[in-house]
Amino acid sequence: MSKMRTEYDSMGPIDVPADRYWGAQTQRSLHHFPIGADRFVWPASIIKALGLLKKSAAKANASLGELDPKLADLIIQASDDVIQGRLNAHFPLVVFQTGSGTQSNMNANEVIANRAIELAGGQLGSKQPVHPNDHVNRGQSSNDTFPTAMHIAVAQSVQHHLLDSVQALRDTLDAKSRAYDQIVKTGRTHLQDATPITLGQEISAWVAQIDFGLAAIKQALPGVYELAIGGTAVGTGLNAHPEFGDRAAVYLSEETGLPFISASNRFFALSAHDALVQMSAALRTLAGGLMKMANDIRWLASGPRCGIGELLIPENEPGSSIMPGKVNPTQCEALTMVCVQVFGNDAATAFAGTQGNFQLNVYKPVMVHNVLESIQLLGDACGTFNRFCAEGIEPNKPVIESHLHQNLMLVTALNRHIGYDKAAEIAKKAHREGMSLREAAIDSGYLSGEQYDQWVVPMNMTRPGV
Amino acid sequence: MSKMRTEYDSMGPIDVPADRYWGAQTQRSLHHFPIGADRFVWPASIIKALGLLKKSAAKANASLGELDPKLADLIIQASDDVIQGRLNAHFPLVVFQTGSGTQSNMNANEVIANRAIELAGGQLGSKQPVHPNDHVNRGQSSNDTFPTAMHIAVAQSVQHHLLDSVQALRDTLDAKSRAYDQIVKTGRTHLQDATPITLGQEISAWVAQIDFGLAAIKQALPGVYELAIGGTAVGTGLNAHPEFGDRAAVYLSEETGLPFISASNRFFALSAHDALVQMSAALRTLAGGLMKMANDIRWLASGPRCGIGELLIPENEPGSSIMPGKVNPTQCEALTMVCVQVFGNDAATAFAGTQGNFQLNVYKPVMVHNVLESIQLLGDACGTFNRFCAEGIEPNKPVIESHLHQNLMLVTALNRHIGYDKAAEIAKKAHREGMSLREAAIDSGYLSGEQYDQWVVPMNMTRPGV
Amino acid sequence: MSKMRTEYDSMGPIDVPADRYWGAQTQRSLHHFPIGADRFVWPASIIKALGLLKKSAAKANASLGELDPKLADLIIQASDDVIQGRLNAHFPLVVFQTGSGTQSNMNANEVIANRAIELAGGQLGSKQPVHPNDHVNRGQSSNDTFPTAMHIAVAQSVQHHLLDSVQALRDTLDAKSRAYDQIVKTGRTHLQDATPITLGQEISAWVAQIDFGLAAIKQALPGVYELAIGGTAVGTGLNAHPEFGDRAAVYLSEETGLPFISASNRFFALSAHDALVQMSAALRTLAGGLMKMANDIRWLASGPRCGIGELLIPENEPGSSIMPGKVNPTQCEALTMVCVQVFGNDAATAFAGTQGNFQLNVYKPVMVHNVLESIQLLGDACGTFNRFCAEGIEPNKPVIESHLHQNLMLVTALNRHIGYDKAAEIAKKAHREGMSLREAAIDSGYLSGEQYDQWVVPMNMTRPGV
Amino acid sequence: MSKMRTEYDSMGPIDVPADRYWGAQTQRSLHHFPIGADRFVWPASIIKALGLLKKSAAKANASLGELDPKLADLIIQASDDVIQGRLNAHFPLVVFQTGSGTQSNMNANEVIANRAIELAGGQLGSKQPVHPNDHVNRGQSSNDTFPTAMHIAVAQSVQHHLLDSVQALRDTLDAKSRAYDQIVKTGRTHLQDATPITLGQEISAWVAQIDFGLAAIKQALPGVYELAIGGTAVGTGLNAHPEFGDRAAVYLSEETGLPFISASNRFFALSAHDALVQMSAALRTLAGGLMKMANDIRWLASGPRCGIGELLIPENEPGSSIMPGKVNPTQCEALTMVCVQVFGNDAATAFAGTQGNFQLNVYKPVMVHNVLESIQLLGDACGTFNRFCAEGIEPNKPVIESHLHQNLMLVTALNRHIGYDKAAEIAKKAHREGMSLREAAIDSGYLSGEQYDQWVVPMNMTRPGV
Repeated sequence: MSKMRTEYDSMGPIDVPADRYWGAQTQRSLHHFPIGADRFVWPASIIKALGLLKKSAAKANASLGELDPKLADLIIQASDDVIQGRLNAHFPLVVFQTGSGTQSNMNANEVIANRAIELAGGQLGSKQPVHPNDHVNRGQSSNDTFPTAMHIAVAQSVQHHLLDSVQALRDTLDAKSRAYDQIVKTGRTHLQDATPITLGQEISAWVAQIDFGLAAIKQALPGVYELAIGGTAVGTGLNAHPEFGDRAAVYLSEETGLPFISASNRFFALSAHDALVQMSAALRTLAGGLMKMANDIRWLASGPRCGIGELLIPENEPGSSIMPGKVNPTQCEALTMVCVQVFGNDAATAFAGTQGNFQLNVYKPVMVHNVLESIQLLGDACGTFNRFCAEGIEPNKPVIESHLHQNLMLVTALNRHIGYDKAAEIAKKAHREGMSLREAAIDSGYLSGEQYDQWVVPMNMTRPGV
Repeated sequence: MSKMRTEYDSMGPIDVPADRYWGAQTQRSLHHFPIGADRFVWPASIIKALGLLKKSAAKANASLGELDPKLADLIIQASDDVIQGRLNAHFPLVVFQTGSGTQSNMNANEVIANRAIELAGGQLGSKQPVHPNDHVNRGQSSNDTFPTAMHIAVAQSVQHHLLDSVQALRDTLDAKSRAYDQIVKTGRTHLQDATPITLGQEISAWVAQIDFGLAAIKQALPGVYELAIGGTAVGTGLNAHPEFGDRAAVYLSEETGLPFISASNRFFALSAHDALVQMSAALRTLAGGLMKMANDIRWLASGPRCGIGELLIPENEPGSSIMPGKVNPTQCEALTMVCVQVFGNDAATAFAGTQGNFQLNVYKPVMVHNVLESIQLLGDACGTFNRFCAEGIEPNKPVIESHLHQNLMLVTALNRHIGYDKAAEIAKKAHREGMSLREAAIDSGYLSGEQYDQWVVPMNMTRPGV
Repeated sequence: MSKMRTEYDSMGPIDVPADRYWGAQTQRSLHHFPIGADRFVWPASIIKALGLLKKSAAKANASLGELDPKLADLIIQASDDVIQGRLNAHFPLVVFQTGSGTQSNMNANEVIANRAIELAGGQLGSKQPVHPNDHVNRGQSSNDTFPTAMHIAVAQSVQHHLLDSVQALRDTLDAKSRAYDQIVKTGRTHLQDATPITLGQEISAWVAQIDFGLAAIKQALPGVYELAIGGTAVGTGLNAHPEFGDRAAVYLSEETGLPFISASNRFFALSAHDALVQMSAALRTLAGGLMKMANDIRWLASGPRCGIGELLIPENEPGSSIMPGKVNPTQCEALTMVCVQVFGNDAATAFAGTQGNFQLNVYKPVMVHNVLESIQLLGDACGTFNRFCAEGIEPNKPVIESHLHQNLMLVTALNRHIGYDKAAEIAKKAHREGMSLREAAIDSGYLSGEQYDQWVVPMNMTRPGV
Repeated sequence: MSKMRTEYDSMGPIDVPADRYWGAQTQRSLHHFPIGADRFVWPASIIKALGLLKKSAAKANASLGELDPKLADLIIQASDDVIQGRLNAHFPLVVFQTGSGTQSNMNANEVIANRAIELAGGQLGSKQPVHPNDHVNRGQSSNDTFPTAMHIAVAQSVQHHLLDSVQALRDTLDAKSRAYDQIVKTGRTHLQDATPITLGQEISAWVAQIDFGLAAIKQALPGVYELAIGGTAVGTGLNAHPEFGDRAAVYLSEETGLPFISASNRFFALSAHDALVQMSAALRTLAGGLMKMANDIRWLASGPRCGIGELLIPENEPGSSIMPGKVNPTQCEALTMVCVQVFGNDAATAFAGTQGNFQLNVYKPVMVHNVLESIQLLGDACGTFNRFCAEGIEPNKPVIESHLHQNLMLVTALNRHIGYDKAAEIAKKAHREGMSLREAAIDSGYLSGEQYDQWVVPMNMTRPGV
């Protein structure tokens, strides 16, 4: 049993581990909420966001004459420790706690206060000279700080973990699309052979879909840049200096380089988190696009001998514990599992988003948890998929050419010359009798071999110049 | 403008069309809830269920001395008109109304009262001799009648629309599974060639999955057989004879042939509809299984020349408005779209199921709407899929044999003789050098051609006797 | 049995009702897809969109020399009949059909061709002088026309059915917010009494949330304005004039007044429908906001004597079939049921959106069905909610004042004067001993009655000037 | 950098940390799948399940003469180390890997082989005398072992983590229901005052709902007891002794005390995981019920002065960082957040469940991850909710009585005596004029004060004897 010290809050005394900066309210939460304890401790992004917020709040309060500059300096120093990740072990709380995140806000207040007290040579738990509520939480409430931290963490994670990773994958595919713009292949609709396309065109659809997802995410960012800070308990800003919220947002922008602003309606910013719901939806849209791409790739790489087999993908590991020599599209599998998880996370987020009452939505922690998890997973999985799959994709030219050559839907090129109905006759004849399309065309009497060769040119059918 | 008559309720007079049996409350609902008016009118199954309930309630009340037998007879006759569907045009209300279904319960009360009044030679709207509340609704509240009607409609739809249709599809597949138990083919895992199976085994997995879904649905029925009737306004049964609920359930069983009983806890039966949530989940499980089956079928039938092409499915219609001769797996497409819809309906149902407060869940109409829609769609789609696709599935034997012959995963049969590592060497060599597996095996020096032929026997690898 | 005539397609002859314009492929679809037949027939918005598209396509083809101007004129006239809704009865097909919507595209081609033939004095079914594929479908494929029609229908429904209805509700609430900016009341967080706000502030959060939802929907429109037309079968535009897609989009803009353009990547526009997924997500965000608002309103209006009772809402109909005099928040119930349905529809849409393969997503019909249904329901329900609930909301001033007066959280105003810990002591004392806050404050000795009266001024606590 | 040793697989050599038992394939997975690395490492329940499986498989193989008893003993000893949790640090892989779980199956094979080698005095990585594939994985494939481990882990977690915890909460509520069966209070429907119930009746609905959820979970267990083992690569059981699957299931039953059996159709058991989908749905049903209960409790405890205030719940921690003395229903908040998460997890699970192809579903890891997480969270949260909220619930009798006394819906007792319409008149008069119901009743002239007192007896209206 480690050494303990006594901390106090409005409910009385409680023992906390002597080597931890946290105080009474954190300790009570640890006791009352041992839920998913091993997996649901807050990630570093939330802890850092709380540090950034408390630092900016101290600056704002000091600049507005609401806080003794000496105390502000202590708080800023302690917050920097939090921001740098040096105090992560002092943030033990989990997602499933108070729905306002109060206990994590207090965790930050307590840790920063005690660290500041230590810096000032005071006694941990004494609340002298820095009080967790009166000074660190000055002009704040959990109800505005926690959603502010949520937005900071989400915005930073999108910017620093997600966008580059997705963009890199997109750029790899875009380069492949250009590299393979001369490879003509069978198109497929309804899983059935269709008119030809180039491999470059096929890949360009994946690029466009990722671009669409990225655009949706970027469109969702401005909502995330709006911060609840300044609203305090119910949105009115009671007990905060009237300029506090704006000022804190300015300092947060300086700290992060992101264009945070004060929310246009703080009552909304506390009682609903639609900006996160929209971000979650945009992540889901991206996930949907990635799922389609990954599915296309693994189907095109299916085989090696009894599938479609038009793409070759890297062999990263043995595929089977029983089938020797088997190689599987494992990066596609990991990525599509991530996509499915993002769908589940989004369902939780959107559901939670509907359940606010009056001045507060008390599903804050579970909402930000799911959004941050989706960001992390998509960022991670796009990274591995890019490195271990997309970069290594190669066309399997012999298979592509063999398929193209057999494809009856080349007949579509004849529509403009002999009409849909006669073209259909030819295709059906070839299919029924197992002939080549050219043979069936000549047999039909509707056109000559020369006409066939002139009209049915797969590369032309992909309309490369358009 | 059609002729009108005046009806009254506790809010006063209101004009209704003279040729309609409905009364004041139905008319008010029509005015206040023109939401999705063309598509969301209650289906016949709900109207019939209300008729069955009102008839059984009249019988129960009469048998308990709570209702003058002459009035009961009139109500029973009028209810029979409802049950037979003769008065469907008198039920104009939509799903999106009061969350308790009060307005549809009153619609039934009003129509039956007015029809009974007419049978008795009275004047429509006079409430003499049959009063919609005091007689037709005797011992009842919307809060217990509407969930009772929900359960009746769902149970009857499952029994009469869904189960046979799904079973017929299952039986078609089961017959195919037996018919094709000698056709050996390539197995596929991770979309990659794997060890052989018979086509019969492949199809048996679909049969087992449908069986699982059917079992889940049947497991969910007992919950649906429990009826709220007898609980009246809040579950206490105030104003109903103490034996009314049990008695009404007995009459409902007689009318329907289904084992309805009175709910074990009526407070639960009004305030939550978990029995429908579980039914919805079971429908979702079935839909998930059907989706997998339909996907397998369309992939196995993909081609005709550039896909897997191991199955042939019926050609029911031209597939493309531009590509002549194209045939698509349209029954698979319709069925999988239904499956996706069932997933959406289930999401709505389960969400609504969480939102009860105190003694009532006021999402009753939207819950039963979604469950009934899923039942109808699954029943319909399994019917068309069976007739227009499953029954016509045939193996494409040349393709099946060609694939099997090329399949490198036959190497797995060697594990027990030469070990996994050497077997892997052989498979990789064959793959790399484009040889047959037999050639690579002999080349490796690990076994002779005779041994290969003795050990690698695809049909044996499917372990037909096990 | 009505009279029949014979129509032909590439599969041969088939009888169709003599009084219908549709042809062979529509008839085959009717036969093969009797799924949800009563509820899932396409709404007018899709039929109109197909009419607009075929008209614009004829214009584009004629202007590019791809179509005889006389035939184009006939097609334009026939399309106008479709646009005007005069031929809705000739569009009998349902959602659950081919996943590309081919059969509905052909339904439009057939109806317009036959109507055009009739206008030209020809014989129905003769395909002379107007052929459904070669002329009406000229330069088109279902794979680009159907998603084009989907986007047209969704864009028009959003513009003409949804936005005004939601805006009207928003404006009603905004006016209420201004009207009640002097009514101070108890704020509530965690369902517990919190510091005061004005009723105007409380309502402003609902306005802001609707504004956010509206903005999300408007942000999703540009994606919907991008049209697949010009891509034909697989995105390459084979068989269409290279300028056809752009030209058709221009004509569609003229016809509709909406800024339709040709899709930047047509391979994407056929193989994925992320623009609809994003629109669906935006509709879900709006629904989430409306659900929170409707819940707040019904809770604030709960009672009349045993609930919160701070708002009065219109009494539109009797609330109970058993409890005399009961009035229920039925508009809130209908609206929240709609919101739940929108969540379910969105789940189906997003799921379907992931399931494309290669050059085509074959969940087109079910996707547009769900998005259009959500648009209709939200538009309808916002309309009724506005008229029958929002406009009639009134504050129940005596209750509001009584609650405010008792609210212990007024103590928060003391934090800045005596600190959080002492303020907590006072509030707890008042709560424990059932005293007024003022009494407890004076009793505590931390402040005088004069100070209390000066510091604790509820209206000031709402910070009206900020 | 720690010391390394070289391991080999069919792809060649790779360095692994010298102090870890894992081998080449685990190391490759670590390299290729750094996705969600900090949060998505497999929980102990999966590692233990793999240990149990490998031990039982060794026993089965030995008993069938498929494995040298000495090697079997070594494998059993090493597996016991895994089962005891002593080797958890040697299982570093995450959920997002191969969709068959192959890498985690190989992780188990490698760790057990190396530990067994060590026990035999051999050299780590030598595969002598125990080979990870040929001995530890004898007669197995990832395709049957991993789903077997999934079922073992889920069944054990349900049995040992979930059921008792939920049952304890249920029993607490059941005891409260009995304890408070004499407390008559206002019922509420549509959030509006309704006829009376006892507090015991109100709580009994929560008990019934939990009972329903528990029953659904227990109904889902038999599906989970069916194990894929014996199916090997594609379900045929190739390379396993024909009795291996049954024998292994028997040993697993002995090890766990749970009635595991061999799956009735192993093709289904590999290609779909509907048993987990059904379990997930049952967990969702339970979550829905818990959400309704937790919402009821926090609303009934809302206030303290401006809410409903009929229940008192424990004050576990300070509720607000800004509002002194505030106490919030935090256990309700944590529990409802868990419920929302369970809904999200279920959405992911059911989606993944649809995505199998041919002989394999490759979403195994993400499915079991979500189901296990839901089990853990529900078990944890029911535990804390029971201890820190449910056990401490007390009625606030003065508020309950005051509400009951004012409740106008007591008028319903008059229906049977004076009819619905006159009763409605009285209730409306009382409401409009702010009178008591008794005053309005007498004023109406329809009944006397004595009759009122005889007929309107709240406790009788709850029908305690029924």
